[in-house]
Amino acid sequence: MAAVPKEFFSPESVAVIGASRHPGKIGHEILWNFARGFYEGKTFPINPHSERILELKTYKSVLDVPDKVDLAVVAVPAEGVAAVVKECTKKKIPAVVVISGGFAEVGEEGRVRELEIKKIIKGTATKVIGPNCVGVFDSKTQVDTLFLSRSRLLRPKKGNIAFVSQSGAVGTTIMDYLAANGLGLSKFISYGNQVDVDETDLLEFLGKDSDTKVIAAYIEGLKDGKKFLDVVKKLEKPLIILKAGKTAQGSQAFLSHTVALAGSAEIYSGAFKQVGAIEAENWEELFDFAKAFSMQPIPRGNKIAVVTDGGGFGVLATDAAEKNNLVLPEPSRKLLQKFKDFPAHASLKNPIDLTGDADVERYKLAVESCLASDEFDVVLVIALFQVPALSASVDDVLIELSRKYNKTIVACAAGSHYTQQLARKLEENGIPVYPTPERAVGALRAMLS
Amino acid sequence: MAAVPKEFFSPESVAVIGASRHPGKIGHEILWNFARGFYEGKTFPINPHSERILELKTYKSVLDVPDKVDLAVVAVPAEGVAAVVKECTKKKIPAVVVISGGFAEVGEEGRVRELEIKKIIKGTATKVIGPNCVGVFDSKTQVDTLFLSRSRLLRPKKGNIAFVSQSGAVGTTIMDYLAANGLGLSKFISYGNQVDVDETDLLEFLGKDSDTKVIAAYIEGLKDGKKFLDVVKKLEKPLIILKAGKTAQGSQAFLSHTVALAGSAEIYSGAFKQVGAIEAENWEELFDFAKAFSMQPIPRGNKIAVVTDGGGFGVLATDAAEKNNLVLPEPSRKLLQKFKDFPAHASLKNPIDLTGDADVERYKLAVESCLASDEFDVVLVIALFQVPALSASVDDVLIELSRKYNKTIVACAAGSHYTQQLARKLEENGIPVYPTPERAVGALRAMLS
Repeated sequence: MAAVPKEFFSPESVAVIGASRHPGKIGHEILWNFARGFYEGKTFPINPHSERILELKTYKSVLDVPDKVDLAVVAVPAEGVAAVVKECTKKKIPAVVVISGGFAEVGEEGRVRELEIKKIIKGTATKVIGPNCVGVFDSKTQVDTLFLSRSRLLRPKKGNIAFVSQSGAVGTTIMDYLAANGLGLSKFISYGNQVDVDETDLLEFLGKDSDTKVIAAYIEGLKDGKKFLDVVKKLEKPLIILKAGKTAQGSQAFLSHTVALAGSAEIYSGAFKQVGAIEAENWEELFDFAKAFSMQPIPRGNKIAVVTDGGGFGVLATDAAEKNNLVLPEPSRKLLQKFKDFPAHASLKNPIDLTGDADVERYKLAVESCLASDEFDVVLVIALFQVPALSASVDDVLIELSRKYNKTIVACAAGSHYTQQLARKLEENGIPVYPTPERAVGALRAMLS
Repeated sequence: MAAVPKEFFSPESVAVIGASRHPGKIGHEILWNFARGFYEGKTFPINPHSERILELKTYKSVLDVPDKVDLAVVAVPAEGVAAVVKECTKKKIPAVVVISGGFAEVGEEGRVRELEIKKIIKGTATKVIGPNCVGVFDSKTQVDTLFLSRSRLLRPKKGNIAFVSQSGAVGTTIMDYLAANGLGLSKFISYGNQVDVDETDLLEFLGKDSDTKVIAAYIEGLKDGKKFLDVVKKLEKPLIILKAGKTAQGSQAFLSHTVALAGSAEIYSGAFKQVGAIEAENWEELFDFAKAFSMQPIPRGNKIAVVTDGGGFGVLATDAAEKNNLVLPEPSRKLLQKFKDFPAHASLKNPIDLTGDADVERYKLAVESCLASDEFDVVLVIALFQVPALSASVDDVLIELSRKYNKTIVACAAGSHYTQQLARKLEENGIPVYPTPERAVGALRAMLS
């Protein structure tokens, strides 16, 4: 039996246990996603006190559902969870997500409840994600167990980044952030107290998931460090980890939040490095790094060409590159020859500063020359799109060049509506855009690590 | 004679020398700002080949203007700048901004041009900002010498942050970013090659500017280190500095960009610290820190209460606090008594985790108790606004509490439209909001440094 059955992500039928008639209630919001969202399978609300919810026939127990049930989503109070999980095992439901809180994170009483669930599912065909989590979102099947309404929290479009999060709050916020920035996601799993399925099972599953190219993970503590490292070592996809609870105080905060043990920073960082996982220092990095892997080929080396029309950005990028062990070689005389018609005030060292009167032609020549040249492994374009002579078609040129050359290209651009619009278009066409030179260079360093 | 005459910011009349009829040209965009923007003084286009531009009578030379001229903005090719500056001195114009590039940043020929300008203005009543800059923006008088069109680059509203930038690109981008985020600015000055007015003159001027509460500066190199440190030591306002060109490679990039000498990282950092300036590591920090000083009182100490409904964020905040020498004391028994009606699954240590079913009342009680208590110097609210039971009125509660208690309060929230809307309202009412716990804590550390 697979540790993570596919029914968590592509169930033909779903039971929402603890479905509620009242908007705002967790059991209502989850049912709404399946009943009124884009999920195409069957949905069965389970609630002993209602006949119909959201116009769907409601059952008193999952055992009363006449069809098979692939996935059960449990949102009943903690003290009732064991009983409904027991019914799920009787019904032979392969996948159960327990949203409910009130388990090990609240102390001894909760720990006892978790042990009970473990006992119930042991030896059965039922696997459990949770409790104390927000569960699963799959952008393809639109399985969506998140109790955060779509009017408040957007769901990302289809994409190739998978995201695993011990914390529901961190996970859903990043989803909302991805969606707001037009970025895609394959699968999201908030796994909470991992009474059964743990982060390692999920990583192993996502390693084989054909919709996923890169995996991002927010982890507080690991249930089984050895198993984790063994699985990560074998992963054939980039894995980026944001490990929280690394400081002494952080570990304490974490202990009262979920249950696995948070260890010392150095031990984790060393172990992650050893098995080829990439560590993010904060959640902006988690997202920055995943975006680079999602969109671009891994650079062949650390020789970077910086092309910009804003000299100050060039200086900041150079500082950041040096801190991150990237080098900016000066262009060869042969390459400089291509730039002979650039105006005298342009700076042709690296960064190549096209200056504030740059136009599309100047950008095209500089970027294409660097992409075509063996002198560089990466081209970082830092575009101040706002300058007057630069038309919006610079976007099309960059997109075309990115397709023509199989070389890593990333961009940096910041600003309001005009810049956002051009940046969004670049990202829709596979060129990741970062708001600062430091963050762009950070993503390159991550790809090279 | 003042080093920085007020005419740079509040001129009664402006001459645009090198005004152009052609949209997209620098001399057109600048004229447009004065002629069609919100500037209320007189505007005189100077161009020997036109009769009228943008429906304004055009003069062949500034010497032909019948009225007095307070400010001249020069946007003619480098080789013509000396001659027009000479005319400005004859016309006794107190303030001249030279936008034109092609000076020391391009080498020997340019350096000679700068010496010529220095000679011309020596002993006259004329002060020069530039060359090789984007000049001045004043949110009150709407003096706006930026050649970046408002259709592409927004201008910030009135506010109390002043921003000084050696680089025009970095400076204007941050302006656009401030505007996009609804944040205000008092004055912006991009000073370029500082042939006359330098960063120190500007800091001294802004130190006395009643519209300015905090000063942010992007600096590549200093013209006169001693003068700079003397002035900064006497500043009675917070000064945040982003120093670029700190690494060996960065200094090189910078040398071909502007002209002052960039020194070693340690020397600068040490000197800044000694005179009480706060260093930002990157331009997000420059903006993050300025926002905190702009909106909130400086914390009395480093004892921070973290109130959240997302446990994972609490863990990240705790990690960040420990790294930044902030402490999270556990609430006293007396304080805990106030939270006795919170549900069992809430965690009442610090971070105070109200959990995903938090409502406005729970937030109000927790935040107000921490604000009112001597146990904490700062309250950091990390709101996952998206949870179902939390109504949007949590904003009004936080704003009311922030007004009631004279204690530092900052917030952290990330997400799409719904969250952005609530975050914007908080900032409009003086509570700074950061997208990650790390950035919120970083801003607190800056305020305490």
